Amino acid sequence: MNYFFSKEIIDDKIILSNKEMIHCVKVLRHKVEDRIKVVDGKGNLYEVEISSITSDKCETKIINTKTIKNKVKVHLIICPTKNHKRIEWMLEKIVEIGVDRVSFIISKNTIRKNINMERLNKIALSAMKQTQNAFLPEIDDCIKFKDVFSLISSKEKYIAHLNKKNNIHLNLSINNTNSRCIMIGPEGDFTDEEVEYSLKKGFKEVSLGISRLRTETSGIVSTTILNL
Amino acid sequence: MNYFFSKEIIDDKIILSNKEMIHCVKVLRHKVEDRIKVVDGKGNLYEVEISSITSDKCETKIINTKTIKNKVKVHLIICPTKNHKRIEWMLEKIVEIGVDRVSFIISKNTIRKNINMERLNKIALSAMKQTQNAFLPEIDDCIKFKDVFSLISSKEKYIAHLNKKNNIHLNLSINNTNSRCIMIGPEGDFTDEEVEYSLKKGFKEVSLGISRLRTETSGIVSTTILNL
Repeated sequence: MNYFFSKEIIDDKIILSNKEMIHCVKVLRHKVEDRIKVVDGKGNLYEVEISSITSDKCETKIINTKTIKNKVKVHLIICPTKNHKRIEWMLEKIVEIGVDRVSFIISKNTIRKNINMERLNKIALSAMKQTQNAFLPEIDDCIKFKDVFSLISSKEKYIAHLNKKNNIHLNLSINNTNSRCIMIGPEGDFTDEEVEYSLKKGFKEVSLGISRLRTETSGIVSTTILNL
Repeated sequence: MNYFFSKEIIDDKIILSNKEMIHCVKVLRHKVEDRIKVVDGKGNLYEVEISSITSDKCETKIINTKTIKNKVKVHLIICPTKNHKRIEWMLEKIVEIGVDRVSFIISKNTIRKNINMERLNKIALSAMKQTQNAFLPEIDDCIKFKDVFSLISSKEKYIAHLNKKNNIHLNLSINNTNSRCIMIGPEGDFTDEEVEYSLKKGFKEVSLGISRLRTETSGIVSTTILNL
């Protein structure tokens, strides 16, 4: 059961190009009249029939459409970890679990200032296809801490940090809305000033439990809880 | 803030030996009268003072003891993934999140039949120390599916699988007990017979949500939920 990805959908036609086309035609040797499955990353799953194959694209006709509704929109705002591999693993996991947008931010104590966007987008696409999840998250390249607030449209906004000991657990804080975001700090945590700034912007402080989780583990745990 | 690990606790003395001793004395160059922190993996965190150092051990005297209670006992029973790296990564994450016992089982569709116990125990120890979690899980080497049931002492027992579509979500199934276990199948899932067998043994079928999670992701997600 292979899923292909395409955003080129016009009326009842879907075009596969580039890598998706190569995978479909060259690797899996699909031919005209074969039926395959295509996702658009926005919750739509199509059954299509291949109508023509040229050297650079594969044209298909939609036979069936299934729209998967995701219960809740999740936006994860997170500082990149020093070790890029940890970000990659986390991204694979949260795409499986369910995330709509991932924004990487540079706070005062963030050591890594850049991420490999090409690699992360590739991992997200592959995780979406392998787990038969029809949603591909939007990934925002590293921006400054203060610049992320203009990107947020979630109704519920949380910041997890360890500067204060008595924050309520995220699981006990979430309400019954359908759009939630959480902000996770770097290895050295957010500064008091950053927490203050987020509170002024409508964020609520939360805890992720008694354990001191690594950054990428916090990303996975909070994405899991926000999807409940 | 380095934590050392020892199980050799006699009255008010704790002995560090082998790697822990080398790390303390050779790498971090601690000397007699230095104060360090030691965990026993069972929820006790000690502040100790080094009283003597010999060529093969470091003897310390307990100054303070802090006992951390874990809210709920979690037992994860899981089939090893084909790729050993994925098990290792999962183990690191679940030790951070909180797990008391991890049993690896070989079900009908499990491809990998063995795990590197030495490596897994090392990863668990390192994750425990790095996250300042005072609990080290017991890890059981691969055993046959049917042999695991005699190891289980949890009050609540769940099996997550995708053979049936209308299972209730784990999060809606958990009760207010303090010992819970969950069984996670391999890439090819449990067989109907295996699910039936577990139901006879008092397990309840649950879902982990609409996404089709990988085995190791299911392990992380369910450990997160069982800790809530």
